Amino acid sequence: MSFVGYKCGICGEEFSPEEVRYRCEVCNGPLLVTYDFAGLAGKVTAEDFAARRPGLWKYRELLPVNPSTEPVSLGEGATPMYKAGTLGSSEGLSNLFIKDDGRNPTGAFKDRGTTVGMTVAVERGIHSVGTVSHGNMGTSVAAYAARAGRTCYLLVPENITTERLLYLSIYGAKVIQVVGRYDSLYDKSLSIAKKKDILFINCDNPFRIEGQKTMAFEIVEDLGWDVPNWVVAPASSGGMVSALYKGFLEFKELGIVTDVPRIAVVQPEDAQPIVSAFVNGTESVEPMEHESDTIVRSLGNPYPPSGNLVLKLLRELDGTAIAVSDEETTSAQRDLARMEGICVEPAGAIALAALRRLVKLGRIKRSEKVVLVASGFGFRDVGDADKLIDKPVTVDMKDLESIVAKS
Amino acid sequence: MSFVGYKCGICGEEFSPEEVRYRCEVCNGPLLVTYDFAGLAGKVTAEDFAARRPGLWKYRELLPVNPSTEPVSLGEGATPMYKAGTLGSSEGLSNLFIKDDGRNPTGAFKDRGTTVGMTVAVERGIHSVGTVSHGNMGTSVAAYAARAGRTCYLLVPENITTERLLYLSIYGAKVIQVVGRYDSLYDKSLSIAKKKDILFINCDNPFRIEGQKTMAFEIVEDLGWDVPNWVVAPASSGGMVSALYKGFLEFKELGIVTDVPRIAVVQPEDAQPIVSAFVNGTESVEPMEHESDTIVRSLGNPYPPSGNLVLKLLRELDGTAIAVSDEETTSAQRDLARMEGICVEPAGAIALAALRRLVKLGRIKRSEKVVLVASGFGFRDVGDADKLIDKPVTVDMKDLESIVAKS
Repeated sequence: MSFVGYKCGICGEEFSPEEVRYRCEVCNGPLLVTYDFAGLAGKVTAEDFAARRPGLWKYRELLPVNPSTEPVSLGEGATPMYKAGTLGSSEGLSNLFIKDDGRNPTGAFKDRGTTVGMTVAVERGIHSVGTVSHGNMGTSVAAYAARAGRTCYLLVPENITTERLLYLSIYGAKVIQVVGRYDSLYDKSLSIAKKKDILFINCDNPFRIEGQKTMAFEIVEDLGWDVPNWVVAPASSGGMVSALYKGFLEFKELGIVTDVPRIAVVQPEDAQPIVSAFVNGTESVEPMEHESDTIVRSLGNPYPPSGNLVLKLLRELDGTAIAVSDEETTSAQRDLARMEGICVEPAGAIALAALRRLVKLGRIKRSEKVVLVASGFGFRDVGDADKLIDKPVTVDMKDLESIVAKS
Repeated sequence: MSFVGYKCGICGEEFSPEEVRYRCEVCNGPLLVTYDFAGLAGKVTAEDFAARRPGLWKYRELLPVNPSTEPVSLGEGATPMYKAGTLGSSEGLSNLFIKDDGRNPTGAFKDRGTTVGMTVAVERGIHSVGTVSHGNMGTSVAAYAARAGRTCYLLVPENITTERLLYLSIYGAKVIQVVGRYDSLYDKSLSIAKKKDILFINCDNPFRIEGQKTMAFEIVEDLGWDVPNWVVAPASSGGMVSALYKGFLEFKELGIVTDVPRIAVVQPEDAQPIVSAFVNGTESVEPMEHESDTIVRSLGNPYPPSGNLVLKLLRELDGTAIAVSDEETTSAQRDLARMEGICVEPAGAIALAALRRLVKLGRIKRSEKVVLVASGFGFRDVGDADKLIDKPVTVDMKDLESIVAKS
């Protein structure tokens, strides 16, 4: 295994790999897994990867598990990336792509991180896992825990809806509704993790980030081992964006690509702590004071644990950040379904809404190659359903023929 | 293209390939596409197929479209087949596999048939398509029609629920609620198809069957180019089972396998026209008189258009048929989620319920290699939710640590 340690994404402090670690003991920044890149140089190439069976475990030299460990897998990764024909034409972009990551086993990109986290749990003999989530991540961790035969704790706020409870509970996880400030649960979970030897595969757990970075690897492979000019991606905790950057940077380090794409981060107007900090030029991300009621429910994190890291990366690597309204997101969702045949949750469509603004602002040029990240499918929570559909027609059988036009 | 014509699945009458055809003009049996197998012999081999990009279009010599036609694709096929470890042990079967076909783009095996039907529509310049369905098939046809830029008519019963309407309408299809006997709509749609030049990609449309047969091809490939002893599969219209048999038989014809597996067909007790006919030894499938209220909503077809063909195949090829209760299905659903991490709709779990009965009856031996078809995911309609989940625990933040056990 070429996993050699952890390094803080913020201050750069390094830690040894033996223990499971989450955050920097010096500055509390999110830790990232490091590899022996000198040892890997020349040993992993685009040709090697291209020849392997599809799925994110093909990149296993760049994942923090032993080569002999059997992955806990539900067939994650290798999601389709479509060239957006109809939509691309309508936007005037001839090189527009959609990475449909809702095609993962439980419907969201989270499965990439969970498969790696769960495999680490099994490899290290950790019998219980958990996460702080009442959305896609909770469902994902519960599913993989079932597959791996691990006890699973999902820490959720009180009074979650019946719909959410169903897909958190169906895999047999212990769902715990915690009375108290939900935003303090992330820290609380890490303290419980340490005391009880439970692996909390939270939003920016270092192993989760390793899995999620494979989306960047796949984007490069999908484009014929090249990078796009832009990746437009949603942010909540910031874990997806920090993972995307890590993936592109590692492929650059290995000489598989020569450049790193710019990333445009998008958040809903009513839940935009990262965007606000970026736009206002503040040094760090401030917690959101209000409770957001955006329809983009997957992006409501009031205090993104990887927010400062994303801010730093965006500034260092010429990225950008923008917020859009819920109306723009719903309209993007409608267009993705009707023009491309892809049904996504609001968080899966918000990148398209952002693209439209960024093109108008001239930040993204129509000639550039752009990848939109569609982070989750719409089959569990489609958002504002009423605005997405038209009323059906009702007709008597005998009149059916007359209302159907000739092809 | 090696597509040379159509042959009636019941009487064997043959028809030329130029026109779009649905049913036999002699006996009204379902038509099946035929190929020039003599011409294909030796030209398509397991090695060829294995070397190609994953997805059902890899089998294109055995699909009824020109080699140069670009498929209308959303990344269908190449669904995972899992070895069921925990579940296999608990059932005492060491060679139990689950083909997770709910991992198709819109969540069900139907996408296999729709991608082929829609590609035929585009290739033949047919601008409008349709289907008779208010379930998975309707959603699938609507999605692919959007991708292909075709007008799409979905013929549904009146007063469909808001939940169903959402995923039928989101892709922009024209949803038509027809007042009248729903079971006569299949025939009505075929008459409209002819008059208005619309391709109705119904449950046993010959092109749909071609796409759906690729599940058999993949099962063979997943097992290292071998067949299992048994495939256990749900039946509604009969289109999945007739397609599975067609796939296995074609691979046998080409010498890729030497045998055809036995198929066990399962239906819910309250909607079992095919099973009844098989068990009672009647010559043909009788229409169901009552309206079924089984929770296995995807399997409610009262008069399966491919029922007689399935009956014939089961008898010729030593298959079997069995009905199970809704309680057994729900229990199977629960076990698939909790033991294997797979969330399926009731129709996706009914094969496991059937397996349990067939093992008990001695029809399937524990030593045999068995593939269960999980036909659709559970994220749109999970069935009897209350029986699938446990109540969550509620606890104050300060007591959280005490209720979490050490790993």
